[in-house]
Amino acid sequence: MKYKICISYNGGRYSGFQSQKNGESIQGVLETTLSRVLVENIKIYGSGRTDAGVSALEQVCHFECCQTIDNCIKVRNYANSILPRDIRILSIESVDEQFHARFSAKSKMYEYYFYLSKVAIPVYDNFALQIDYDVNIDNMCKACEIFVGKHDFTSFCASGSSADNKIRVIDNAQILQVDDRLYKFVISGNGFLYNMVRIIVGTLIDVGRGKINYKDINEILLAKDRQKAGKTVEGKGLYLKKVIY
Amino acid sequence: MKYKICISYNGGRYSGFQSQKNGESIQGVLETTLSRVLVENIKIYGSGRTDAGVSALEQVCHFECCQTIDNCIKVRNYANSILPRDIRILSIESVDEQFHARFSAKSKMYEYYFYLSKVAIPVYDNFALQIDYDVNIDNMCKACEIFVGKHDFTSFCASGSSADNKIRVIDNAQILQVDDRLYKFVISGNGFLYNMVRIIVGTLIDVGRGKINYKDINEILLAKDRQKAGKTVEGKGLYLKKVIY
Repeated sequence: MKYKICISYNGGRYSGFQSQKNGESIQGVLETTLSRVLVENIKIYGSGRTDAGVSALEQVCHFECCQTIDNCIKVRNYANSILPRDIRILSIESVDEQFHARFSAKSKMYEYYFYLSKVAIPVYDNFALQIDYDVNIDNMCKACEIFVGKHDFTSFCASGSSADNKIRVIDNAQILQVDDRLYKFVISGNGFLYNMVRIIVGTLIDVGRGKINYKDINEILLAKDRQKAGKTVEGKGLYLKKVIY
Repeated sequence: MKYKICISYNGGRYSGFQSQKNGESIQGVLETTLSRVLVENIKIYGSGRTDAGVSALEQVCHFECCQTIDNCIKVRNYANSILPRDIRILSIESVDEQFHARFSAKSKMYEYYFYLSKVAIPVYDNFALQIDYDVNIDNMCKACEIFVGKHDFTSFCASGSSADNKIRVIDNAQILQVDDRLYKFVISGNGFLYNMVRIIVGTLIDVGRGKINYKDINEILLAKDRQKAGKTVEGKGLYLKKVIY
């Protein structure tokens, strides 16, 4: 039997979603917990990895098991009572054999939180990147628009990527003001390369600072050269918001 | 010389703003730090207390000192380099002798974050109250409107309060949807009694659950009886947003 499982986690103290040699992973903790609850060896397949420090409001995974789970809510609640507080299972549901958390995903939505202040604001510092120099938000918004569409994102992909095809379609990319000093960058598309969102945010900040003209984003895309884009911002402000099937 | 000082803090690990016999306070940490930086004994006066676990995006205080501070930014930065990461000084500025952080304040704005989910969402759980039963947000919004205006808030004041006059004027009280499951209750007024915001939120939740009819809020106000209102919700979701002079 195959099951779809929606989870939510605070990635702060994990080495990332995927099981690694060093450090605890979300996948590892989930596998241990579900194996214990279902009393059989469970392997978790995620919709994609999230890096160290990156959180998820809703990540989707699947797993297969020999038994039929009669009461998914009971399994969810039992697993949640064992899981550490920073990982929670939102739902478990039976799916057909064709479903695959990664390959069936149509699109993903990410959010990146940042705030503008010369001094760190402790409440925001828990979940957002501090930008302590002046930035022009209007120019950053104009740059966002250029990312929308079908592009080769080689310039926005970290060197460790194993992806052969670096063409992705972005449906939406925009900056929304959440509060006086707090903003979120929202992006959704059919797939994201290794560190892609964090490199896009780093590049947007360079546009905001005037180091890159927003009109040059197109050239950076066409260059297919990681060196042309901005730096990779830290994982802390990044959230996987939703996976759509 | 008198100075106005704006600060921001994450109250999670403190016993509250005000110095207490037990536990570390925001005021205590600030006094120790500024006394060290200015090499004289500094006493901090806040615009008001915040309880244990309550945070502030912008709290305002004042202090007096014998010396004239020539470079406020330098003092701020030096103090911030000593302060724990969960307290930051946003600004220090000279004010005239009449200014008093508490008595000169015209109004204050608080925000209380909550989210609706049967299962805890780890990212939200860091800063918001989880409501795991069904609530009717429309009814809660209707209840908010009744709090606006000049009322005796005795029913919404914890028993330990030292305030004689419990009449306060509320300019604004509303619930705003922040995200799919995340909401904030925003309230501003000329002053707040001990635990007042947290008791109002507890009462709004009872309205949402149907335990209290929103039309009965007026009667609860008129009763001047703490027993008639809802319970005091936890401090975690509460933020002092702004103090206006």
